[in-house]
Amino acid sequence: MVATTDVLVEGVHFRQDWSSPRDVGHKAAAANLADVAAMGATPTALLVGLAAPAGLTLDWALELAEGLAAEAALVGAEVVGGDTVSSGHYGSDTDGSHAVGPVMVSVTALGDLDGRRPVLRSGARPGDLLVHAGLLGWSAAGLAALRAGRRSGPTVDAHRRPAPPYALGVVLARLGATAMMDVSDGLVQDLARLATASEVGIELDTALLPEDEEVDVQDQLTGGEDHGLVATVPSGVVLPDGVRLLGTVTPPGRHGPGLRILGTQPQGQGWTHW
Amino acid sequence: MVATTDVLVEGVHFRQDWSSPRDVGHKAAAANLADVAAMGATPTALLVGLAAPAGLTLDWALELAEGLAAEAALVGAEVVGGDTVSSGHYGSDTDGSHAVGPVMVSVTALGDLDGRRPVLRSGARPGDLLVHAGLLGWSAAGLAALRAGRRSGPTVDAHRRPAPPYALGVVLARLGATAMMDVSDGLVQDLARLATASEVGIELDTALLPEDEEVDVQDQLTGGEDHGLVATVPSGVVLPDGVRLLGTVTPPGRHGPGLRILGTQPQGQGWTHW
Repeated sequence: MVATTDVLVEGVHFRQDWSSPRDVGHKAAAANLADVAAMGATPTALLVGLAAPAGLTLDWALELAEGLAAEAALVGAEVVGGDTVSSGHYGSDTDGSHAVGPVMVSVTALGDLDGRRPVLRSGARPGDLLVHAGLLGWSAAGLAALRAGRRSGPTVDAHRRPAPPYALGVVLARLGATAMMDVSDGLVQDLARLATASEVGIELDTALLPEDEEVDVQDQLTGGEDHGLVATVPSGVVLPDGVRLLGTVTPPGRHGPGLRILGTQPQGQGWTHW
Repeated sequence: MVATTDVLVEGVHFRQDWSSPRDVGHKAAAANLADVAAMGATPTALLVGLAAPAGLTLDWALELAEGLAAEAALVGAEVVGGDTVSSGHYGSDTDGSHAVGPVMVSVTALGDLDGRRPVLRSGARPGDLLVHAGLLGWSAAGLAALRAGRRSGPTVDAHRRPAPPYALGVVLARLGATAMMDVSDGLVQDLARLATASEVGIELDTALLPEDEEVDVQDQLTGGEDHGLVATVPSGVVLPDGVRLLGTVTPPGRHGPGLRILGTQPQGQGWTHW
């Protein structure tokens, strides 16, 4: 089995005026279920921790739970347990006053490997192909649209409820994927992590990125939270529908393991937590 | 396998001026490891989510991690993964100002049943014995001492770092425990939950409570966070060292399932989250 956990914080990962509680449930579940899929496992169960400030309505919490359950049901998983706590009033560390804590949702997902070994970030080998499945840059474009005052449209929908290509995780694992992860913090940043973990070079060719009217290449390179899957697979593998070639794995370069981008260079780094 | 999750929030479950980060790590791990033990399983792994406000020092986080690892090591378990996120600045829901979020630690514990069925809250049968292992009321007495300005002593230590009788969980399961849970929110409240889940009556005899100089009977009845184990076992079982008889299981009373207290009556309800 595999297990993974992710925490979503109001004001950091979602805003109540931009996302419904059901959206937040879908997103919190999706972020974790995608991690399970990226290890080549089938998600089976979610555990959910909810820290709720004074004043959060019961309806909000119930709709959050519905969103979590609905996203889990997409892959045949269930919410099997959890914890609910108050997030405050708590003492401020600056002036001793009391503030209302944010809504925080922590989710742990469990998955079944069906006897296979987990696919890690660390197994990519020179000569492998670099592939991707799912959306790229849509969530970031949707966030920009929300910031610009728009409240609907396909990228806004993609920001509120990511749609990871769950089933392709097991498919890629069965095809012999040597490394895999979901793209949480942006393609450039996450590929650099995969290259470092595998001690290889990765060449990403931006000419191979999908041509989407909805997003530009910068969103594709640095936008996070789409939770698509990047993987490295042995050369010669016939790529299944929905999986796109984006580059190749090479030996480490002169400066060590890392990502080399052919074509358009990124103007930012992607999502940073701090 | 079994899995359980608990969330600790600064200002609700701990205060930085009363507990060191190492204490918080021990406590967050203990609350979850005790849940695993209460199902009759051996803890194997922890996943940890940390939401940290701007300004939390790296040392604080590292000492938290050391506390988590040290408590897990007591039962042969390890921290195997997790997530770190920022808990703010986030928008207040009242005046639009920005506040620093609290420290929040979410822990998920996994455990191995070694082929046994999990012990649930719902299996108690009339005629069973009610037993308890671990401390009772010490954490509540320690919290009262901290509120009164004391900063050391055995109950303060017990509040900062609960010491659940982990190994007795598997021992009680092997002795045929029909129901078990850890005492998180106070004996009276948690026994009422067990009675309801099992659809039985429970008679707790306060004359059987341990005589501790450190705590009074009210702390024993309603104090939470000691994470001792309460269990029901078939009559005739020879109780192992460290396990104390506290009462018996009966058929549901006239008013349905629930707890009946013989002797000193509680003056409060125990810990309520809301």
